[in-house]
Amino acid sequence: MIGGGEGSFIGGVHRIAANLDGQIELVCGCFSSRPEVSYRTGRALFLPDNRIYGSFQEMIEREASLPEGERMDFVSIVTPNHLHFAPAMMALEHGFHVALDKPMTFTLDEALQLREKVNSRGLLFMLTHTYTAYPMVREARERVRRGELGKIRRIYVEYPQGWLYEDCSATNKQAAWRVDPARSGKAGCMGDLGTHAFNIVEFITGLKATELCGELISFVPGRLLEDDGAALIRYEGGARGVLTASQIAIGHENSLRVRIYGEKAGLEWSQEEPNTLLMLWPDAPAQILRTSNGYLSLAAKHNTRIPAGHPEGYLEAFANLYRHFAQALQALAVGETPAAEDLDFPSIEEGVRGMRFIEAIVSTNETEQKWIPIGD
Amino acid sequence: MIGGGEGSFIGGVHRIAANLDGQIELVCGCFSSRPEVSYRTGRALFLPDNRIYGSFQEMIEREASLPEGERMDFVSIVTPNHLHFAPAMMALEHGFHVALDKPMTFTLDEALQLREKVNSRGLLFMLTHTYTAYPMVREARERVRRGELGKIRRIYVEYPQGWLYEDCSATNKQAAWRVDPARSGKAGCMGDLGTHAFNIVEFITGLKATELCGELISFVPGRLLEDDGAALIRYEGGARGVLTASQIAIGHENSLRVRIYGEKAGLEWSQEEPNTLLMLWPDAPAQILRTSNGYLSLAAKHNTRIPAGHPEGYLEAFANLYRHFAQALQALAVGETPAAEDLDFPSIEEGVRGMRFIEAIVSTNETEQKWIPIGD
Amino acid sequence: MIGGGEGSFIGGVHRIAANLDGQIELVCGCFSSRPEVSYRTGRALFLPDNRIYGSFQEMIEREASLPEGERMDFVSIVTPNHLHFAPAMMALEHGFHVALDKPMTFTLDEALQLREKVNSRGLLFMLTHTYTAYPMVREARERVRRGELGKIRRIYVEYPQGWLYEDCSATNKQAAWRVDPARSGKAGCMGDLGTHAFNIVEFITGLKATELCGELISFVPGRLLEDDGAALIRYEGGARGVLTASQIAIGHENSLRVRIYGEKAGLEWSQEEPNTLLMLWPDAPAQILRTSNGYLSLAAKHNTRIPAGHPEGYLEAFANLYRHFAQALQALAVGETPAAEDLDFPSIEEGVRGMRFIEAIVSTNETEQKWIPIGD
Amino acid sequence: MIGGGEGSFIGGVHRIAANLDGQIELVCGCFSSRPEVSYRTGRALFLPDNRIYGSFQEMIEREASLPEGERMDFVSIVTPNHLHFAPAMMALEHGFHVALDKPMTFTLDEALQLREKVNSRGLLFMLTHTYTAYPMVREARERVRRGELGKIRRIYVEYPQGWLYEDCSATNKQAAWRVDPARSGKAGCMGDLGTHAFNIVEFITGLKATELCGELISFVPGRLLEDDGAALIRYEGGARGVLTASQIAIGHENSLRVRIYGEKAGLEWSQEEPNTLLMLWPDAPAQILRTSNGYLSLAAKHNTRIPAGHPEGYLEAFANLYRHFAQALQALAVGETPAAEDLDFPSIEEGVRGMRFIEAIVSTNETEQKWIPIGD
Repeated sequence: MIGGGEGSFIGGVHRIAANLDGQIELVCGCFSSRPEVSYRTGRALFLPDNRIYGSFQEMIEREASLPEGERMDFVSIVTPNHLHFAPAMMALEHGFHVALDKPMTFTLDEALQLREKVNSRGLLFMLTHTYTAYPMVREARERVRRGELGKIRRIYVEYPQGWLYEDCSATNKQAAWRVDPARSGKAGCMGDLGTHAFNIVEFITGLKATELCGELISFVPGRLLEDDGAALIRYEGGARGVLTASQIAIGHENSLRVRIYGEKAGLEWSQEEPNTLLMLWPDAPAQILRTSNGYLSLAAKHNTRIPAGHPEGYLEAFANLYRHFAQALQALAVGETPAAEDLDFPSIEEGVRGMRFIEAIVSTNETEQKWIPIGD
Repeated sequence: MIGGGEGSFIGGVHRIAANLDGQIELVCGCFSSRPEVSYRTGRALFLPDNRIYGSFQEMIEREASLPEGERMDFVSIVTPNHLHFAPAMMALEHGFHVALDKPMTFTLDEALQLREKVNSRGLLFMLTHTYTAYPMVREARERVRRGELGKIRRIYVEYPQGWLYEDCSATNKQAAWRVDPARSGKAGCMGDLGTHAFNIVEFITGLKATELCGELISFVPGRLLEDDGAALIRYEGGARGVLTASQIAIGHENSLRVRIYGEKAGLEWSQEEPNTLLMLWPDAPAQILRTSNGYLSLAAKHNTRIPAGHPEGYLEAFANLYRHFAQALQALAVGETPAAEDLDFPSIEEGVRGMRFIEAIVSTNETEQKWIPIGD
Repeated sequence: MIGGGEGSFIGGVHRIAANLDGQIELVCGCFSSRPEVSYRTGRALFLPDNRIYGSFQEMIEREASLPEGERMDFVSIVTPNHLHFAPAMMALEHGFHVALDKPMTFTLDEALQLREKVNSRGLLFMLTHTYTAYPMVREARERVRRGELGKIRRIYVEYPQGWLYEDCSATNKQAAWRVDPARSGKAGCMGDLGTHAFNIVEFITGLKATELCGELISFVPGRLLEDDGAALIRYEGGARGVLTASQIAIGHENSLRVRIYGEKAGLEWSQEEPNTLLMLWPDAPAQILRTSNGYLSLAAKHNTRIPAGHPEGYLEAFANLYRHFAQALQALAVGETPAAEDLDFPSIEEGVRGMRFIEAIVSTNETEQKWIPIGD
Repeated sequence: MIGGGEGSFIGGVHRIAANLDGQIELVCGCFSSRPEVSYRTGRALFLPDNRIYGSFQEMIEREASLPEGERMDFVSIVTPNHLHFAPAMMALEHGFHVALDKPMTFTLDEALQLREKVNSRGLLFMLTHTYTAYPMVREARERVRRGELGKIRRIYVEYPQGWLYEDCSATNKQAAWRVDPARSGKAGCMGDLGTHAFNIVEFITGLKATELCGELISFVPGRLLEDDGAALIRYEGGARGVLTASQIAIGHENSLRVRIYGEKAGLEWSQEEPNTLLMLWPDAPAQILRTSNGYLSLAAKHNTRIPAGHPEGYLEAFANLYRHFAQALQALAVGETPAAEDLDFPSIEEGVRGMRFIEAIVSTNETEQKWIPIGD
């Protein structure tokens, strides 16, 4: 693991998620750019000192020099956005598979370089768009694929949070880097939340966004990055979307919600009640689909562990990504082709799409041109 | 009453609403442009034949000629949009107060003429934006007025319906005129639903929308008016809104919902669960406010009849408008000044605002200019 | 109308409900045992003085002496429980149809006498168990009748309120008579709420309760009647029920809720969200049935006025009872047989059942015998 | 671990839960009474063959003979009910701490013996009443302790499931032992679900149930144990409860829900939406408390890992028990006194209470005596 030292939120989440199914073991790490923090964190995680590193360069080089079977199998990078590219690129170059947090890179250019590297090296690359790993999001995608909704027409996706409704960067480490362009990148709210919202729609519908028209706002005085924004989005095939994201919507915790309407049916899913998927029909009652029931597709079942009515949450969704990633690695390790469902995690392409979205949403805010194309 | 013959939805609603509190009695009507329908409807409503009319012109002239105390006190006009202006104008010219359904007129120009007439004649004019008469919408406005939300930042308003997801104009009278530009006007979905959504935000926040950027879509093949649309809206003072409306969002019945976030708090209200208002706080639990409780403001109490937990619905909200209108008329009849709360119904200004909105939303769809100003 | 003077809750509700559909007109009334209150109330309701009475005896005698067509068609009795029997009996004896609030009488014996009178006179008698008139309660009954649930096994019915959580009888007229044995009868909470809960189960399932085992409690110090209670109930055919009612369940407004499970399916309905009925299936997603949709039965449609998504509430449910009662009266007036759906209101039998329930629930509290039979 | 072989539900849950926080490592196990199953399971869990055992006796003896630091620190017993006592007793006798699933034993007598052993040996004993480890259940208890509800009056607890609505014991291993008196004990539904419901009320309120009156039913033909039941319960101090549990309530997954009303406030919690706690106030709006917010007590915070809006579920609640158990063990291992919050898991007393409840609820069904005392 690279990153995830004391005070990190997502580092601990990655560790629990990777560990949850007993398929992955933390063997080494560089948890901070400050070596003393890295060592303190590593020891608390029961790592031996010789597998705790003071820099990611040292770690990757040293691990690469260890004999197979002893060295790490892959690296998880959980640093702030500006520190994604360098360790990811170096790990790939040294032959390590990579799990990386989103947004994938600091700039689109880095994303494109990374894509080229991943593709040329043939290594596994997983981008942790956690929300796509909830069983009911998989079910939603399956329903769309089966044609139950018919041609998609209208998409609403929203991702309101409220925790940054006032300036708390001085006291909150999580807040501090997210509102700092030097660490977060061009976008604030849209990089942190908007990319998830953008991704989950493309994931469920299989449709690519082609152009957007939007606006970014920084409501909190003095904040350098936007803390709120909204965009109209056009998708291939004629579907239309509205995407909103906010960090100042007081009272909202982490309320990612997506609603999709086709010619024949609609569906609705909310991250805060993740085990429910609502199916909406034109001349019949709405149906409440619930995780772990027999009527669900294999896509949902492959991402569930326990019986219906025993709520699975965010950590389980995150663990689903790691479980499939681990199973794919195991298959590769024994020379087999990974099962399709184990390769079904967000990858380098989703990472590039996310950076395209950031480019476009930042551009839209800077021109009077109504529609901004989103490249491939 | 003008309009509201057999097969009309809103005519019956107006009659129940006006009648509900026992303050208003239907005394005459021209219920259809086809006299035989008008007579059949009137008789079923227990009207004597001499107060049933075959044309609105005949009705207004005849009623105006009756002695005071015998003639109608005001006229309710519940015809399709293209038949709002002429009877409203004629009624005003003959000295009758008017209650009119929204959108107020067929064109903005008609709206401006009507405004001039109302203002010059000093008559009461009520536009039946029903949703503003729910007690919890009044409470929401009161909370904003008191400053509980602080300065408003972000507004989401949505109004999805699903009933027009396919072409049903041949079999459904309600659908037929709504999708016909000759009867509905320039806008379809936005005239029918968008105007409500636009209005409720201005009503609750007290903020005027200044410009918008949006898109209208007609998803159902062959439909001449849009059946779906979305817009980004800028409000005076810097607040930003997103307004969506749809007639093809399968599974939605009449799901007007508004969410407003300020510097200090947020609130949320949904028409389909109208007796609940959610108050959202930054460092405290959300609160569920419910109709008819002692902790509500007078603004809510003036629009409620029965104890908490006894659901009041759409007809009661509609009746609130008529009750206050009736009380204002009674005050005028005896030479008194109506109470402020009885004059607190949507009026000619809201009607003009709605037409401004329709103008702007139709314009935005026809240009590459990003932001379209909304006039006063 | 008898009762319903100033300060009455249910009197105003009856008037609005009777009036709502324009089929019933208030023509006379004795609104209070204090003549000056009766006159003041009647005048405020636009009644002429000669149709306002100072005692119900005077009213019934005088109205009976008026020529047909001029006299009242039926009488609504909305007095406290101890004043139900005498005016109802007298009205029936003078040939008037009767609408009466629940619980039907002060004692079981009165109920049995009233039943005999109703049956021997052949007059219409309606007991206003309002909750059975919600469209989705009718739908629930229809679903059971059709066999969709299979044989009924388990029933939960609850009716919590919180408004009497402390002693408020000195300041609240509604509270005062409900906690007074001299006006309310043997039972407090169970008479006011329990009878509704008991009734709605028998209404929906068509099953008669045969015996019960329960406990009544008076939690508020000094209160003479119970303000809370619970009972296990056995139904014919082997179904088992749990009935709870409370006036001290803080935070609850009027939360009547019924859940019924059979061999093949289950259903759930809540009075505070009356337009939704949940259908529960063993190997398929739950379904959300909503008022006014095309997939509902005629039983629901006959009790609905407006399109889906326009909430109908308590007053509309109440008005459904009066509407059907009025239509049955109209049919009788012209010598026709009323339509079955118009006679489908709670009647004298439901009234007797309610009194049987009160007898049994009060008995169970006074003995160590586990099961108390409920007579017919 | 003892038990938890292939096809087990709860064994896998225990393993994930114990493992989730990286504080506990599975070092040995006897996963089945059939050695080949035990070995197959153990190998799949990466255990070396010499730590996989064919019988629990062999395992406990062998592990006890290993030097400290090598042998297991404690044993988790996850077998069906009839196989709880023997391994638990033997483990305690050999000086091992024990984690055990509920209901604690097959008979009350076994429970009392186990209590004596635990108390005399001074070992840690944890009963996995998982539901008490949800953060919002801890918050609920804290609110009661602080006196926010005042004296408790009324308690409703329900635990409906629907999965056993028909006979599936031939095809479902989970169902088979639960409906078999030889493996499950005297009670079916009440042992499996009722004990949880009984426990969570005593946990939150701190009140002991003193007597009960109830009924058990077996609705599915041929089933030997009850699949549904209900009881009225009296608590010390005068509070009254209703407890219901069912395995035939079609449509319910795992719907444990508890509602508690005191003199000053009420609260409500549902296992299927575990991150929400509703606080109900007499003259103020209800509040929605949500996991991980700053306004919660330490009791809640100690049982949460991730920020608000990232749902934690059943596995995290289960892991909370193991995390605290592990921390208590670590403290003991270094000669320290465990922190109070780490000893705050359900223990031998709760186990005895559960068996007392089973005794009483089975008795109540067999007599005509109304109230059955529940011993200490």
